[in-house]
Amino acid sequence: MQTARTTVKRHPERGVYDRATVDAILDEALICHIGFVYEGQPYVIPTIYARDGETLYLHGSPGSRMLRNLKHGIDICVTATLLDGLVLARSVYHHSMNYRSAIVLGRAREVTDRAEKLHAMRSVVEHVVRGRWDDARQPSQGELDGTTILTVGLDEASAKVRSGGPKDDARDLDLDVWAGVIPLSLGPHAPVADNDLPVPAYAEQYARTPRSATLQDE
Amino acid sequence: MQTARTTVKRHPERGVYDRATVDAILDEALICHIGFVYEGQPYVIPTIYARDGETLYLHGSPGSRMLRNLKHGIDICVTATLLDGLVLARSVYHHSMNYRSAIVLGRAREVTDRAEKLHAMRSVVEHVVRGRWDDARQPSQGELDGTTILTVGLDEASAKVRSGGPKDDARDLDLDVWAGVIPLSLGPHAPVADNDLPVPAYAEQYARTPRSATLQDE
Repeated sequence: MQTARTTVKRHPERGVYDRATVDAILDEALICHIGFVYEGQPYVIPTIYARDGETLYLHGSPGSRMLRNLKHGIDICVTATLLDGLVLARSVYHHSMNYRSAIVLGRAREVTDRAEKLHAMRSVVEHVVRGRWDDARQPSQGELDGTTILTVGLDEASAKVRSGGPKDDARDLDLDVWAGVIPLSLGPHAPVADNDLPVPAYAEQYARTPRSATLQDE
Repeated sequence: MQTARTTVKRHPERGVYDRATVDAILDEALICHIGFVYEGQPYVIPTIYARDGETLYLHGSPGSRMLRNLKHGIDICVTATLLDGLVLARSVYHHSMNYRSAIVLGRAREVTDRAEKLHAMRSVVEHVVRGRWDDARQPSQGELDGTTILTVGLDEASAKVRSGGPKDDARDLDLDVWAGVIPLSLGPHAPVADNDLPVPAYAEQYARTPRSATLQDE
């Protein structure tokens, strides 16, 4: 939803507010960066997460500073960015990057209900490697207790997208300078096994296929 | 430098405080995420940047909210993260990611000196595509004026690194669950040209070779 706080101020033509775009970015990215304030100082911490419908689950590595603040209901900003390419224009000034970025503002709360926590952990694992949850050993009660999951709603979210080639000034188009895009993507390499069991397909042929829909309930 | 604010609280064994590690991460990553506070709300914005010795230059896409705050001397957190792999443990609980993350805390100031601004823009372009600066049309005075560069020192920086295979509990090692790492890297694809000029080597064979030293002055 577009609010005053989520309206893209710089390059407003890159602002995208439909939820489908936001969801697609959140579902494809593997990590987000969480911003929060502690004693007046902003911190930005890379974190594993998952989207589940209208909810974002954040896995408990935001660090103790954040957790100590949680009981007060902490304002956070969650940003997930996919880098799609380097844009080389004829002029230095118009050099850019192609990217898709989703930004979520909201107040985080801790997930304490056992069933919701388990569901959140499953969402996070399946977000990263679809099909993995059922294969791995399930969490014990102690492991559940030792995991912190935060949740934040998606009602104040927006996206910013840049795509396509360089946008040079008309007077520069005939300059003797190569221009174009170097596409980039995050890709997998051959799995490095830690035991001698058969490598599952989701590891052997890992691909960042975005989850298109809400994860089914267990 | 390790300070109370940069000491890694969670997984302290992953904290790295030597500048060589921090510098290598900053030099390899293409974008950072800048955190700042506006009207009590944290924001996290993906941004292009470059390291130049003891200095980080941040290119002017942090958005107008940040710029409006700048004259007060804004506290920021700059985080650059490289995702190196997905760690699939035998237990759900020990699933993780391999990554290298650098975090810089400091107070940003705007670069206003013309020569420093030009140097910063060159640093940023060369950080992204080494060799590109000299090929492209140089910035006009109007383009320099239209570019905002922030700078922050590196005296309060730290890194967090996770590498290697899964670290399962001893009692789980013989479980019938495949375990290992799916390595990941951000890689280039064939350039998409915007004109018919010969493709320069830095685009044709683009590789994320970290800059090992301070960029030479022009």
